[in-house]
Amino acid sequence: MSRTLVELLRDGLPDEAILTDPDVTSSYAHDMASFCEAGEPAVVVLPRTVEQVQHVMRTATELRVPVVPQGARTGLSGAANASDGCIVLSLVKMDRILEISPVDRIAVVEPGVVNAALSRAVGEHGLYYPPDPSSWETCTIGGNIGTASGGLCCVKYGVTAEYVLGLDVVLADGRLMSTGRRTAKGVAGYDLTRLFVGSEGSLGIVVRAVLALKPEPPQQLVLAAEFPSAQAACDAVCKIMEGGHVPSLLELMDRTTVKAVNALAQMGLPETTEALLLAAFDTPDPAADLAAVGALCEAAGATQVVPAEDAAESEMLLQARRLSLTALEAIKGSTMIDDVCVPRSKLAEMLEGVERIGEKYDLTVGVCAHAGDGNTHPTVCFDAADPDEGRRARESFDEIMALGLELGGTITGEHGVGVLKKEWLAREIGPVGVEMQQAVKAAFDPHSLLNPGKLF
Amino acid sequence: MSRTLVELLRDGLPDEAILTDPDVTSSYAHDMASFCEAGEPAVVVLPRTVEQVQHVMRTATELRVPVVPQGARTGLSGAANASDGCIVLSLVKMDRILEISPVDRIAVVEPGVVNAALSRAVGEHGLYYPPDPSSWETCTIGGNIGTASGGLCCVKYGVTAEYVLGLDVVLADGRLMSTGRRTAKGVAGYDLTRLFVGSEGSLGIVVRAVLALKPEPPQQLVLAAEFPSAQAACDAVCKIMEGGHVPSLLELMDRTTVKAVNALAQMGLPETTEALLLAAFDTPDPAADLAAVGALCEAAGATQVVPAEDAAESEMLLQARRLSLTALEAIKGSTMIDDVCVPRSKLAEMLEGVERIGEKYDLTVGVCAHAGDGNTHPTVCFDAADPDEGRRARESFDEIMALGLELGGTITGEHGVGVLKKEWLAREIGPVGVEMQQAVKAAFDPHSLLNPGKLF
Ligand SMILES: Cc1cc2nc3c(=O)[nH]c(=O)nc-3n(C[C@H](O)[C@H](O)[C@H](O)COP(=O)(O)OP(=O)(O)OC[C@H]3O[C@@H](n4cnc5c(N)ncnc54)[C@H](O)[C@@H]3O)c2cc1C
Ligand SMILES: Cc1cc2nc3c(=O)[nH]c(=O)nc-3n(C[C@H](O)[C@H](O)[C@H](O)COP(=O)(O)OP(=O)(O)OC[C@H]3O[C@@H](n4cnc5c(N)ncnc54)[C@H](O)[C@@H]3O)c2cc1C
Repeated sequence: MSRTLVELLRDGLPDEAILTDPDVTSSYAHDMASFCEAGEPAVVVLPRTVEQVQHVMRTATELRVPVVPQGARTGLSGAANASDGCIVLSLVKMDRILEISPVDRIAVVEPGVVNAALSRAVGEHGLYYPPDPSSWETCTIGGNIGTASGGLCCVKYGVTAEYVLGLDVVLADGRLMSTGRRTAKGVAGYDLTRLFVGSEGSLGIVVRAVLALKPEPPQQLVLAAEFPSAQAACDAVCKIMEGGHVPSLLELMDRTTVKAVNALAQMGLPETTEALLLAAFDTPDPAADLAAVGALCEAAGATQVVPAEDAAESEMLLQARRLSLTALEAIKGSTMIDDVCVPRSKLAEMLEGVERIGEKYDLTVGVCAHAGDGNTHPTVCFDAADPDEGRRARESFDEIMALGLELGGTITGEHGVGVLKKEWLAREIGPVGVEMQQAVKAAFDPHSLLNPGKLF
Repeated sequence: MSRTLVELLRDGLPDEAILTDPDVTSSYAHDMASFCEAGEPAVVVLPRTVEQVQHVMRTATELRVPVVPQGARTGLSGAANASDGCIVLSLVKMDRILEISPVDRIAVVEPGVVNAALSRAVGEHGLYYPPDPSSWETCTIGGNIGTASGGLCCVKYGVTAEYVLGLDVVLADGRLMSTGRRTAKGVAGYDLTRLFVGSEGSLGIVVRAVLALKPEPPQQLVLAAEFPSAQAACDAVCKIMEGGHVPSLLELMDRTTVKAVNALAQMGLPETTEALLLAAFDTPDPAADLAAVGALCEAAGATQVVPAEDAAESEMLLQARRLSLTALEAIKGSTMIDDVCVPRSKLAEMLEGVERIGEKYDLTVGVCAHAGDGNTHPTVCFDAADPDEGRRARESFDEIMALGLELGGTITGEHGVGVLKKEWLAREIGPVGVEMQQAVKAAFDPHSLLNPGKLF
């Protein structure tokens, strides 16, 4: 059967686009999430054209072989993990930027374009593609669309969903469907474009995307504020948002995270602080905005408020924030990264609860957060070689999600459901929600071939 | 059968919530679109609670009676038109604002809340609900969600879809489903919330919505620029957007529209101009931004550039723009309002083509446009008592849509498909698109009871 599959694939794909060596294919088995089952792919294909993707899906449907689409496999929920005997469909070779239009403020791209490559290319036209996951130097636009990625800029600029205007999608049976538009607005029929964003490769293969761009804003200026407690920092976040400010980022790192980043990269961040808040503005007069926000931080109890001197110092602070997850991983070798988003009015309660859970399970849990969005990443650090620590990590990870739901939040602000949070999706959206989501899935993928075992 | 229907409805609805007098029910037969078929409702119901809506849907499913949801019936595509023997389900009595949270920047509302009422209520908290269709004094949030409404502010703030975070929806069989969230971000499962936005009542009944709010921006200042041709005005629009400016509105009125508004409301707009462009900024220094944009207008050939003196004069200019459709209707008594959105780089070609079409059919076609979005409203003026004029109006209306598609645009930027543009939807999205949209419809509404005969 596996021979027939590969033979059929060869009918429409060049040799170099088909990988069958088990040593090679097994390196495509999983993304960057811990504790997620992953199977052995039968074959990995790396198409370069839409027609080749169509051929793969036609073949898969004919033989009823499951297909797992992949970008750069930086995902944190196992959503790109292979299942046994599947075709891994990697889109990384479809990496052309097809068009950039400053007047229409759009870019048209293939799915394998790396986020940072797009950012730089549009930057040359004075344009800006906001969604900026911390993995932006490697992750792909296809993966960003698959997971509906966020990043640091979301508090002002929103998430990937806000920037996807239209898609070309290869359906499970190999047919090509265009959704959406290349215009600024459009309401012709159901919004299937948005339905695909965040669908984790389970409804179709994105082969082309029309993305909205913004004009490049002024260089942002960052402020760092030190707080004697996480609660005081959360209080500052609420005061800033309630005060009508529109920061271009509003990020929190707790003491554990700050120390981890210093240990990894000798950043010289202040280790005595319980919580470091980073705020930035990309407004015409960022210094004035930072002054106002600095005053609110002080009113909330900040012990130090330090505006960056210049762009270089600002970038250094952002770099520290972007390193957080990697730095926390270095503590014990493994992490489970939660992604609970709560109404920002509940942020302090969330962080208090996380601390309690860490103590209960006797584990280090570092928290970094897109605080302005209420999107926390409590990161459970553990030693994968110690089974009891592994068990406790898993249990505390779950308890953190339960707390998020209790506070009116969601189990995932930006990393998605994948394999990791399947049971939790059902808890969040309830039986009617699951039934209707599965009905949508069945409408697009009647034979359950697209990324099976994910989401539900 | 009609008796049984009403009797069953009475089991779960108070008497005053059920209207059966044909003189009364027939006044609910249609929205504000011309040339759209409308049937006679069997009964009109005006529920006040979610349970009552569930009762209506359960009854409808039991008896297989179609249901047409309605807001204020200001729609322009016949999407709220009754079908023969249907239950009209009017949501206008569910008009409570349930919550406004400045920290979380959300409002929770029932569907019958009028857009302007919400705007004013959140304004008291220093907050801003951007979507502002020109019908905002009467249209409802439920209708705005049903049609994915736009308005003047979209060029900067986006459309209704950007502001709907979560929904409670009563499904065709009466079950209640919650979608989305009350957090700033969230990617738990498919984005059914966005799927409902713009679905024209054909997938379920919206009974509650969580809406995102922005902090109230500074008062905007408006500039009016007069151009010797529509093409020159479009050229200015492109220069402004290419230049990286972010106006809070960028609207165009052609000579016909300007004269019509003056005739209706004695606004004293300059009648000698071929095209009037309104630009506004709600930035910290709007005068500086207007000066920069004014210079670009002059470079594009503007003969006059007049910044408004103050807020009152700014508001007067907006009022003129908002009156455009009503004013054009007064010319001949009836209008067909197109809603073609093109990439803004094609705006000039679009307006040239519209002029040609008007001449070809010997009809007055006034154009107002959300020019910054490329969203034009070519408005065909005709005398409904003259059958030949009616035929020509219909044909020119269609030809304008064909032109929009040719230019890479969409048949509807914000008014929706409804009854009016059913055939055109199929032309725009193609057979695969139609098939998949219908599959989604069938997943939610297997007996085709929800607003049948719309969209497809
Ligand atoms: C250090 C680090 C920091 C991170 N920071 C952030 C962050 O700040 N914000 C954030 O949101 N995420 C973050 N992530 C998570 C991850 O980087 C993002 O989810 C990213 O969008 C995944 O992109 P990818 O190309 O690696 O996709 P993959 O992991 O390969 O795939 C992700 C999903 O998309 C699907 N998919 C991929 N391509 C296609 C396609 N063409 N068509 C259909 N489906 C497709 C896959 O099947 C899978 O379900 C971080 C990860 C790491 C390791
Ligand atoms: C003078 C004038 C100016 C206008 N200007 C604009 C403009 O600038 N921009 C713009 O986008 N539109 C504009 N419109 C069109 C119209 O006002 C909008 O489409 C508006 O959103 C309709 O709201 P409504 O409450 O009247 O809804 P209705 O017309 O009653 O219904 C619209 C659709 O939504 C559905 N619906 C209503 N309530 C619900 C519910 N609770 N659950 C599920 N479905 C529901 C209906 O079935 C129907 O399909 C204008 C109309 C007029 C008359």
